[in-house]
Amino acid sequence: MERIEQHASFGGRQEVWQHASATLGVPMKLGVYLPPAALAGQACPVLYWLSGLTCTEQNFITKAGAQQYAAQHGIILVAPDTSPRGEGLANDAAYDLGQGAGFYLNATQSPWAAHFRMEDYVVEELPALVAAHFQTTGRQGIFGHSMGGHGALTLALRHPGRYASVSAFSPIVAPSEVPWGQKAFAAYLGEDRAAWRAHDAVALIATATERLPLLVEQGEADEFLATQLQPERLRAACEQAGHPLELNLRPGYDHSYYFIASFIGAHMAHHARWLRS
Amino acid sequence: MERIEQHASFGGRQEVWQHASATLGVPMKLGVYLPPAALAGQACPVLYWLSGLTCTEQNFITKAGAQQYAAQHGIILVAPDTSPRGEGLANDAAYDLGQGAGFYLNATQSPWAAHFRMEDYVVEELPALVAAHFQTTGRQGIFGHSMGGHGALTLALRHPGRYASVSAFSPIVAPSEVPWGQKAFAAYLGEDRAAWRAHDAVALIATATERLPLLVEQGEADEFLATQLQPERLRAACEQAGHPLELNLRPGYDHSYYFIASFIGAHMAHHARWLRS
Repeated sequence: MERIEQHASFGGRQEVWQHASATLGVPMKLGVYLPPAALAGQACPVLYWLSGLTCTEQNFITKAGAQQYAAQHGIILVAPDTSPRGEGLANDAAYDLGQGAGFYLNATQSPWAAHFRMEDYVVEELPALVAAHFQTTGRQGIFGHSMGGHGALTLALRHPGRYASVSAFSPIVAPSEVPWGQKAFAAYLGEDRAAWRAHDAVALIATATERLPLLVEQGEADEFLATQLQPERLRAACEQAGHPLELNLRPGYDHSYYFIASFIGAHMAHHARWLRS
Repeated sequence: MERIEQHASFGGRQEVWQHASATLGVPMKLGVYLPPAALAGQACPVLYWLSGLTCTEQNFITKAGAQQYAAQHGIILVAPDTSPRGEGLANDAAYDLGQGAGFYLNATQSPWAAHFRMEDYVVEELPALVAAHFQTTGRQGIFGHSMGGHGALTLALRHPGRYASVSAFSPIVAPSEVPWGQKAFAAYLGEDRAAWRAHDAVALIATATERLPLLVEQGEADEFLATQLQPERLRAACEQAGHPLELNLRPGYDHSYYFIASFIGAHMAHHARWLRS
C-alpha cells in the first residue's frame, strides 16, 4: 500500500492510499483520515464511508466536511472508490452501471463477476488492510450516500456483529423495486429475484437477527426521492419487524453534498456514541 | 441576474447566479450563500471570497466548509469567478495567466485591457448587484486564497473605508517580487514597475491611510511558500509601518482547501466580529 496524497487537516491528516486489491484484481485508491489521536499513537475506531454513483475516493474527502468531527471524536475515516476501474475492465456507457457503480455486492454474472466484488472488498479486504497499516481499536462503523447508503445498510444487515454503527444519507433502500437497483441487480446478479432480495435493505430488515439502530437522513427536495429512494418502504419494513430506525426527513434539502455536509456532524456524533463506547 | 443553482445548506441556501457583467463584457457566475437570517428577511452583512489560480465560483462553495459559520454568524457569502471567461476572449496556455487568473486588477495592456477588469468588477459592480438582489446591511468584508488572498489584501488597501474586515489564506503578499505576480503584472500592467506597486500588498502597506487589521493564515508545508508567497515580507512591511497584522504560521499545512477548511471557522469569526458590530 502506497500513500499518494497527504494533507494536514483539522490537526490530523487526510491521506489517499493506493494498493493492489487481491479481491478486485486491480489497483484501488482510498481516502484515509487520521485524527490527531491517531497521529499521537492512540488506537482509534474506523468508520467506512461508501459513496454514491459516479463518485471516486475524492468526493467525500473534499466535500463532506467530515474531518472536523472525526478529529473531535478520534475516529479514522476510510472512503474507498465505488468500483474497480481500468481500461481493460468491463464497463457500461451509462453512469449507473459498471465503473463508478459497483453497488457494494459481488457480481455473479458475466462480464462483471471477474472484478466487481465490492462486498468482499469492503467487508473483508479493506478492514484487514486498514488494521495492518493503522492502529485501530477493532470497532468499526459504516455509512454512505445514495448507492453508498444502500451499501452501508445492506452490508451491516448482511454481516451482523461486524459493524457497531450504521447510518445513511439518501439511501436506495429497496433497490429491487426501483430503476437504479433493478438495472444493476439484473446485470450483476442475473434475473433471479431471490438473489436480489439478499442485497435489498428493506427485504433484509424482515429477517435481521441483530437490532442495529439505523439512522437515515433524507432530503425532501431530493430529485430522486420518489423514483429511486422511497424511504417510506424502509419505515414500513422497520415498523413491521420492530427494527429501530431514526428517519429524518429534511424539508428543502436535495441529493447533493450540501445536504450531506449539513448533517454530517450529527451522523458522526451517532457513530462516535457506538464506536467509542 | 438569473439563479442557475440552489441547494439547502445548514438551514440557509447555497445558490449560484449568472449575470451579464457590464464591467467585464461577458456572462459571469457567482456563488451566493444566504444564511437562515437572510431567508427570514433580515438584512445581513456581505463577505466576499476571492479564489486562487484556476478556480471558478465552484471551488470555495464545495470545499471550504464556510456555510456552517455563515449560517451561525448571519453573513451572506459571495464567491465570484477568478476572471472573465469565453472562447472569444484573450487567454494564455499557462494556468497562471488569462482565464482563471485575473489577479483582481484592471488590465491596461493589449490584449487583456478589453475584458480583464476584475478590480472594478469586485469592488464596484458586484456590491451593486448584490445590494440590488439581496437585503444587506451595507457592511462588507473580503477574504481569499493565494491569488485571491492577494486580491483581498490589495483591494482592501486600495479602497480604504470600503471593507470593514479583511483576511487571507496563503496570499501572494508581494506579487512584484515573485514569479506568479511578475508574469501577470508584466502582461496585464506592462513593464512600468511603478504601476505594479499599486497592486502589491507589501508596497501598499507603507502608504496605507487606514489601519485595517490584517489576519493572514499560512501553512508552513505550503509548496509555494518560498517561491511565491513569502509572508515574512508582509510581516516586515507591517512592522515598519505599524500596521496591525496577525500572521498565523501553521506547521504541516499545505496550499490546499484542506488547509482553508481547517481554519475557515476562525476567519469567519474574525469577519463576524467586524461585520456585525
